Amino acid sequence: MDRQQRRQEWERASESYLLAASLLFLTSYAVQVLVPGLSPGWRTFWALVTVVTWGLFVADYLARLLLSDDRRRFVRTRWLDLIVTVLPLLRPLRVVEMHDRMQRRRDHPRLALEARVMAYAGLTSLLLGFAASLAVYHDERHAPGTTVRTFGDAVWWACTTLTTTGYGDVTPITPRGRVTGAVLMLVGVALVGAVVGSFSSWLLRRFRREGET
Amino acid sequence: MDRQQRRQEWERASESYLLAASLLFLTSYAVQVLVPGLSPGWRTFWALVTVVTWGLFVADYLARLLLSDDRRRFVRTRWLDLIVTVLPLLRPLRVVEMHDRMQRRRDHPRLALEARVMAYAGLTSLLLGFAASLAVYHDERHAPGTTVRTFGDAVWWACTTLTTTGYGDVTPITPRGRVTGAVLMLVGVALVGAVVGSFSSWLLRRFRREGET
Amino acid sequence: MDRQQRRQEWERASESYLLAASLLFLTSYAVQVLVPGLSPGWRTFWALVTVVTWGLFVADYLARLLLSDDRRRFVRTRWLDLIVTVLPLLRPLRVVEMHDRMQRRRDHPRLALEARVMAYAGLTSLLLGFAASLAVYHDERHAPGTTVRTFGDAVWWACTTLTTTGYGDVTPITPRGRVTGAVLMLVGVALVGAVVGSFSSWLLRRFRREGET
Amino acid sequence: MDRQQRRQEWERASESYLLAASLLFLTSYAVQVLVPGLSPGWRTFWALVTVVTWGLFVADYLARLLLSDDRRRFVRTRWLDLIVTVLPLLRPLRVVEMHDRMQRRRDHPRLALEARVMAYAGLTSLLLGFAASLAVYHDERHAPGTTVRTFGDAVWWACTTLTTTGYGDVTPITPRGRVTGAVLMLVGVALVGAVVGSFSSWLLRRFRREGET
Repeated sequence: MDRQQRRQEWERASESYLLAASLLFLTSYAVQVLVPGLSPGWRTFWALVTVVTWGLFVADYLARLLLSDDRRRFVRTRWLDLIVTVLPLLRPLRVVEMHDRMQRRRDHPRLALEARVMAYAGLTSLLLGFAASLAVYHDERHAPGTTVRTFGDAVWWACTTLTTTGYGDVTPITPRGRVTGAVLMLVGVALVGAVVGSFSSWLLRRFRREGET
Repeated sequence: MDRQQRRQEWERASESYLLAASLLFLTSYAVQVLVPGLSPGWRTFWALVTVVTWGLFVADYLARLLLSDDRRRFVRTRWLDLIVTVLPLLRPLRVVEMHDRMQRRRDHPRLALEARVMAYAGLTSLLLGFAASLAVYHDERHAPGTTVRTFGDAVWWACTTLTTTGYGDVTPITPRGRVTGAVLMLVGVALVGAVVGSFSSWLLRRFRREGET
Repeated sequence: MDRQQRRQEWERASESYLLAASLLFLTSYAVQVLVPGLSPGWRTFWALVTVVTWGLFVADYLARLLLSDDRRRFVRTRWLDLIVTVLPLLRPLRVVEMHDRMQRRRDHPRLALEARVMAYAGLTSLLLGFAASLAVYHDERHAPGTTVRTFGDAVWWACTTLTTTGYGDVTPITPRGRVTGAVLMLVGVALVGAVVGSFSSWLLRRFRREGET
Repeated sequence: MDRQQRRQEWERASESYLLAASLLFLTSYAVQVLVPGLSPGWRTFWALVTVVTWGLFVADYLARLLLSDDRRRFVRTRWLDLIVTVLPLLRPLRVVEMHDRMQRRRDHPRLALEARVMAYAGLTSLLLGFAASLAVYHDERHAPGTTVRTFGDAVWWACTTLTTTGYGDVTPITPRGRVTGAVLMLVGVALVGAVVGSFSSWLLRRFRREGET
């Protein structure tokens, strides 16, 4: 059995553990940001969960890198994997890839093409929006002159940003908050654009089918 | 005659009554929100209309559920019906489905494909925008520091939200108002995107036809 | 010669006069709004130009209505003509129709399909944006608490509205200004969407062609 | 060898020098805007770089104009070249054209169609956004009542403008800053629209391929 096969086997085996680790990471980050009076014991516990899950992501990336025949090519073509390993809050972006692997095991997809694109782009937007809300709330709430006073404000901001409405009643003002905002804008504009495009195409197809029958 | 047939017969028979009930519901909600000095008698009357029409929606949903062969499947595939039964202000979303049934009775649609998509998505946006304006005006007008002082403000806000312009001169600040806003943004962005996409495709087709003749 | 033919002949003959009248109408409106210290004589002159050109639009509409075989059908199918007759500032919307008639006389269009859509939708957006800037500047400049202090502010507002950016630093606050804004948003979103869609499609086609050769 | 051939040879030969000059121009402009306490010697040096590179653009345009058989046609069809010669900050718009010439030399493009459109439209947006940030920071930072206090503010403004989010917490107020903003909005909306459209189309194609295999 050559290396390439072993890497694929690794990816198949580690997949569900990585999904669980991703959810744990997001949960631990959410708890640390959202629960104000965490006792020292719990604080340590959740910080540990964050570190351990992050360590798992790094270990998985290194393992796959070692199991590759052409390591430079792996780094170059799998650049998204490197990004989501360094910034685990962007992990929802790998949903599409996971979907790829899941599809290979099944014969026929259950949903129509547009419905699948909408479901995956929508789910990714939702998770990224949630992660961005947490990050912005974390960075902004104690900044002087902040408009992000509650977590609800941060979620409201994420909604107006993902849909490019941008009221501006709640906006990040710290450098880190603005970098988060810029990433959410750029990634979100593409994902929400994909949802809207698929919906539009699905609607046209549905009306066309009726016209024919 | 089996159950499935009886459900379809029920849906055919109840359709026009439900449309009337939907309009009555929206009217009663609009009157209660917009007319300030309603006498106690009229207040009771319109509250009654709201309750009765809502009751009709629930009764219709339960009737169709009972007439289904596979009830779990009915709940799962007809999830939009459940949502619009619980939140009747979202009823305009069922316009597409009504259109489906109407089409089946007629031989040829009168309008071009894009025109139909634009008409239905546009009409749905309009009704949802009106319902959202009412809800936001209802929730926000007495909030301290509100920017929604008149119903005109609320309509203006709905326009800027549906087109994702988002000036931010009028924005909801209460939690319920913001939930309404988020729903309008997400649903509206898809519907207005469908209108824009259809218009763009219609324009391209119109110019192409000219080039050929 | 029957009526239908006579109407078409009328439309062919009146076209260039109507285009000149449209430009005169926009010019007279612009002069009245933008030149502050107009002498009474010039004021009367330009007001007269406005009234006379508007009268020409009405006369043209009535003439075509009288020359129609089925007058109800004319009103119903040519609803855009009625709207631009009542609100001459929306006249740029008829550019597409004019283009139709011009094309019929020529054999081959000079530009690629997408370029034509972009040119016409872009031109219409530009003219509508200019007309909306004038109308908003006219309605808003003397309103208490206005943000539209100069004509430059109004043009800047029209740009942010047409592209759905919507900063909100300049926004209409009077009812008439907001109606103008809502029309510009809705019409503009569709037109700019058409420009963007055509540009995107043109870019894809250009890159595809390269890949093939 | 006729003129047309000589112009094409010129374009082939000058291409890489022009690209270097473009980067030098942007660098010199960035240094002059961003480095506050530049010594008189360095200030003169960078001003010279700006002038010399600009002179090269003008010389190249004139050379190509002189080498054209039909000069009027050259000015009319190559209008983008004239614009980027007069306003060198818009030079990134010529990226597509450069790509054309590069493609002609290679047999097969390395990337998928949508990936190439995304890469080129994205790169152009990035460079234009950077140039617009510099220009707006340059024009606005000393204006009374400005909201563009740091270069970070300008970059944040460019992000919200390119994605049409438009919070309005940072906006240009000087006439020149607003013209820059309007250009960025119009050009950016089309380019980002192209990126979103290509991403959406790529996603649909990726999901479709899976469904088939």
